[in-house]
Amino acid sequence: MQVGIVGAGRMGAGLARRLVRHGHTCVVYDPDVQAVDRLRADGVIGVGTLEELVATLEGPRIVWVMVPASLTGAVIENVLRFLVADDVVIDGGNSFYRDDVARGRALAEHGIHYVDVGTSGGVYGIERGFSLMIGGDPAIVERLDPIFRDLAPGVAAATRTPGRSGTVARAEHGYLHCGAIGAGHFVKMIHNGVEYGQMAALAEGMAILRKAGIGISARTGDTSIEAVADADFYSYDFDIAEILEVWRRGSVVSSWLVDLTTAAVHADPELSGFSGHVADSGEGRWTVQAAIDEGVPAHVLTAALYERFASRGEADYANKALSAMRMAFGGHMEKAAEA
Amino acid sequence: MQVGIVGAGRMGAGLARRLVRHGHTCVVYDPDVQAVDRLRADGVIGVGTLEELVATLEGPRIVWVMVPASLTGAVIENVLRFLVADDVVIDGGNSFYRDDVARGRALAEHGIHYVDVGTSGGVYGIERGFSLMIGGDPAIVERLDPIFRDLAPGVAAATRTPGRSGTVARAEHGYLHCGAIGAGHFVKMIHNGVEYGQMAALAEGMAILRKAGIGISARTGDTSIEAVADADFYSYDFDIAEILEVWRRGSVVSSWLVDLTTAAVHADPELSGFSGHVADSGEGRWTVQAAIDEGVPAHVLTAALYERFASRGEADYANKALSAMRMAFGGHMEKAAEA
Amino acid sequence: MQVGIVGAGRMGAGLARRLVRHGHTCVVYDPDVQAVDRLRADGVIGVGTLEELVATLEGPRIVWVMVPASLTGAVIENVLRFLVADDVVIDGGNSFYRDDVARGRALAEHGIHYVDVGTSGGVYGIERGFSLMIGGDPAIVERLDPIFRDLAPGVAAATRTPGRSGTVARAEHGYLHCGAIGAGHFVKMIHNGVEYGQMAALAEGMAILRKAGIGISARTGDTSIEAVADADFYSYDFDIAEILEVWRRGSVVSSWLVDLTTAAVHADPELSGFSGHVADSGEGRWTVQAAIDEGVPAHVLTAALYERFASRGEADYANKALSAMRMAFGGHMEKAAEA
Amino acid sequence: MQVGIVGAGRMGAGLARRLVRHGHTCVVYDPDVQAVDRLRADGVIGVGTLEELVATLEGPRIVWVMVPASLTGAVIENVLRFLVADDVVIDGGNSFYRDDVARGRALAEHGIHYVDVGTSGGVYGIERGFSLMIGGDPAIVERLDPIFRDLAPGVAAATRTPGRSGTVARAEHGYLHCGAIGAGHFVKMIHNGVEYGQMAALAEGMAILRKAGIGISARTGDTSIEAVADADFYSYDFDIAEILEVWRRGSVVSSWLVDLTTAAVHADPELSGFSGHVADSGEGRWTVQAAIDEGVPAHVLTAALYERFASRGEADYANKALSAMRMAFGGHMEKAAEA
Repeated sequence: MQVGIVGAGRMGAGLARRLVRHGHTCVVYDPDVQAVDRLRADGVIGVGTLEELVATLEGPRIVWVMVPASLTGAVIENVLRFLVADDVVIDGGNSFYRDDVARGRALAEHGIHYVDVGTSGGVYGIERGFSLMIGGDPAIVERLDPIFRDLAPGVAAATRTPGRSGTVARAEHGYLHCGAIGAGHFVKMIHNGVEYGQMAALAEGMAILRKAGIGISARTGDTSIEAVADADFYSYDFDIAEILEVWRRGSVVSSWLVDLTTAAVHADPELSGFSGHVADSGEGRWTVQAAIDEGVPAHVLTAALYERFASRGEADYANKALSAMRMAFGGHMEKAAEA
Repeated sequence: MQVGIVGAGRMGAGLARRLVRHGHTCVVYDPDVQAVDRLRADGVIGVGTLEELVATLEGPRIVWVMVPASLTGAVIENVLRFLVADDVVIDGGNSFYRDDVARGRALAEHGIHYVDVGTSGGVYGIERGFSLMIGGDPAIVERLDPIFRDLAPGVAAATRTPGRSGTVARAEHGYLHCGAIGAGHFVKMIHNGVEYGQMAALAEGMAILRKAGIGISARTGDTSIEAVADADFYSYDFDIAEILEVWRRGSVVSSWLVDLTTAAVHADPELSGFSGHVADSGEGRWTVQAAIDEGVPAHVLTAALYERFASRGEADYANKALSAMRMAFGGHMEKAAEA
Repeated sequence: MQVGIVGAGRMGAGLARRLVRHGHTCVVYDPDVQAVDRLRADGVIGVGTLEELVATLEGPRIVWVMVPASLTGAVIENVLRFLVADDVVIDGGNSFYRDDVARGRALAEHGIHYVDVGTSGGVYGIERGFSLMIGGDPAIVERLDPIFRDLAPGVAAATRTPGRSGTVARAEHGYLHCGAIGAGHFVKMIHNGVEYGQMAALAEGMAILRKAGIGISARTGDTSIEAVADADFYSYDFDIAEILEVWRRGSVVSSWLVDLTTAAVHADPELSGFSGHVADSGEGRWTVQAAIDEGVPAHVLTAALYERFASRGEADYANKALSAMRMAFGGHMEKAAEA
Repeated sequence: MQVGIVGAGRMGAGLARRLVRHGHTCVVYDPDVQAVDRLRADGVIGVGTLEELVATLEGPRIVWVMVPASLTGAVIENVLRFLVADDVVIDGGNSFYRDDVARGRALAEHGIHYVDVGTSGGVYGIERGFSLMIGGDPAIVERLDPIFRDLAPGVAAATRTPGRSGTVARAEHGYLHCGAIGAGHFVKMIHNGVEYGQMAALAEGMAILRKAGIGISARTGDTSIEAVADADFYSYDFDIAEILEVWRRGSVVSSWLVDLTTAAVHADPELSGFSGHVADSGEGRWTVQAAIDEGVPAHVLTAALYERFASRGEADYANKALSAMRMAFGGHMEKAAEA
């Protein structure tokens, strides 16, 4: 099929290359001319304007918008000027699903279809395939099926789930029509919420392993609690890269995330290339908002989000308040050693 | 090699069968005679007493104890009566690593070696191999290497970690000598702590997906918050089994745990076969204790543990206290509908 | 001054009675005729319709709406039909501060002023005075000052804060103009968020005290962890009512909440009059939303909210998912004893 | 009565002065000669050695040890050399209750009585009285009653709890015999756990208030989430000192902690005198350990503890791990602006 892609960043470029490999025609626009040029070498048709992108496609057109969520709204408004009824706009970015609902309504007024696609797979998607969570009108999603099927990892990417037999379902190929407009990004939002939780679980475990030798340096009489409690039982010097490696095979925590983390720690055991100021990109926050709107407890997913906030210094004022309280009722001075 | 195994439960039976398949000689004792009989059919030598187990093995013996953690101490004391210097006792259960240290010292007084092996892989280990986290004296661990190598999944169970080349390390085969006595169970403890966190992250995400249709039933004027806040945005009817299926391939959360959960939800979408009273087996608690002793924050791992406590009704008194407070300052009656 | 009050529930009745005691004229409307009748005995002017309420007041009128947050919008729309320019509407309920902003704009189109007042004090406010957090136009808040001053507890309700001298500030009387429209409810929202946290902290502490005798009933060989870990150290039989009583005087946790909880536990030590299904009224949720929008970690306030969700069974599906996972990888059956 | 006090720090000095004021005879030893000298001016008998302290007291002696928990064991061992049967040692510090049990047994072998007293009240105790949580043999606690009664705040420090009448209980005076040896420190441990939770709840609330103006500086197009989400609703500029002041009177969160925090923020609104590295002194950790041993969920108390750990940089490695994961699967670079 013919697909226009707006955005030649990591994700957009990955989609384009994978589609071309599978025989589709890809027309790509990005204001970053060099990014577009790099794609031309791989058989992608690069264009210089949105208008040109639309003009190059035969109708009914498919325009896949793959830009940062904060820009999606503006980009769709721009491309809309050149589209006609029965064209399709796909938002493949990490949009808030509520924005999908509004956008879908706005496009529908022009007879243009809107499909939201939560896209997971990161920079590896081009090789492994992308996991696609799709929301929109069934007939339109059906129309796009050949694209989704070729972007998805395919059923061979995992053994078949016990209990499944017969025809292979779309979900087994790695893509799923989740429901009406917004459903794709809702499911992707929760996916990322779970991802935050998995990441935090692993990171916390690694941090506990890393300090398992604290007892070695403990000195009697030190007023620090760490120094005196059960020091004998904290005399291990663990090689975290090797531990992660062993968890990759056969263990209950084996996962792609452990695979990736193993490589990262193998390359940089102290992770000294990182400051530890961890960004969050929206889905984690929206997941918590959904949990609260639904009244569902989500201790783990929320804690994972808050740890990211704190990593960026956002707990500092609260911590100062705690110190001020301790000073107020107990005369406790902050220790110089702590500063 | 020759290995004696005490315990023919799920894990012990799995170890025995996998060892026999790889050409080792396995002698198994369990007070459950039928469990031992079932193993005989697979080439295992079943015996009726601990004494017989020890007598059947050539020295220096290897006795792998694979029983519930609460029984391990007593079993080791029993088997000790029949062992001699240079024999090896392996504790493959989920023991507290501090107990290893004490046991290792006690056995050392008799010249008997002690090795602790954290064993992950569950009921699938017999086919997939077991992930082994090992603590003990290097020379003794080396002596046991052929056993560990055959129990482990082997390097082929996963693609090689980028950056690794040359000789395949033990960790890449799926087993690791983590350090001195206790190190194996320490690492396994943290492994299970991470496992709790991963499980809770996934379960919370599933719970939010499940209530994403709450807005459909919302009624205006209902005093329940859920019913009125943004009801329009909660009108999805998700098929959780299909969503999990799509997450299995290509997504960042893809993992063995997602694989297993997909099968479980596929078989029983409402999970109606479960009451939701979730047990915890010790490692989660010890992980939190380690985090606290080390002064490392572990919000996610701890929340995962506490959610299990609460699942068993252990928050009930605190909740009653909250209701009593609300009544006291606000005159708030608990709603009948809530009871 | 003359004040019209819509709503004769616990809070509205308390405001009316306290205002009358301080010499103000209070006109009250509530569809519950008996509630209005009860107030007449205390010198309040009861009326049968909103129209009558407005007609009874001299202009510029002050109409204080004190109804459940879910009804506030409709009530204000109704009363608006009878008001004229320069009248004032006060929303004293637990509205979401964002609704204030919208309401303020809508009323401003009619030249009517809007003031939002977060009101704390519960059923005790009539005697102790109400803590008032106020948002709105400075000139209008100034106009209402005599009402706020008499509703507030007054400076004598606490010793003066060290460092304060000279003229007594409004905040020291117990009421505060916090900022523009919405500011009052924003501050009240955070107040209630903190309240949730304080309540949960106390309730959790009580729950730990209550099980401090768990070791007495521990039986060796029981597979329950609680039964075997350090049983000797959990042999206390605490009298929680007496403990709370001792915390009321001189301790760092002494607070009104401890005072109230002491009385509740003294009256019903097992809290058997409560089911422990704890409602939440909105502010806790909005507090978390604000924390997330601002990127500020709020582990404690959020955990307190989620514990309420869980108290109402909202964690059940997630818990079933955990049990399903444990069965899947480990063959763990839920224990009958747990059911 | 005659009381020997070992330790002339903030707490020991406070106890001594309050006892002298109530007509008791106080003999104080501290290696810090100047600290002892300062007490002499207030009528305390200062001595230069433990031996002298014991020699100065008439038997049966009462020796109150009031030193940092890490020194208590050594001090008691020292003083023990000079004591005889029927003397009493009181540990008034923040000892782990399990240490009490061991110490009580050791002293009992010499016929010496041991009483543990959890002491709350901080630097204000000398004026307000101390809240005392006591563990030990009933007869011995009875013997010490005159001391406890005069140290405690007294019944007038709070209004009587509704439902209480007749003879004023000890708890109403502000001291309580909680149970056998260790019970006093157990209750104090939980008290401090609750204190941690209350502190964190308030600090988090303050932090959310402080960033309520974040929307004012939001710029469109900024990739930071904070900058774009609902900026209009975060345009408040709150005066936190005034807000705390208004919460002191009549509100549900009114408490001694709010009183103290109000003074601190009034004196230093930005809390610029504090670095925000918050120490923890043991009870918070032990509270969590008790929660876990008992299987009681304590989300709030634990989160409060972990926030202190994180305030001291203990989450840094976990955060780096998160950044490494994000780089690995998504190619996400940490933003320079974040560093």
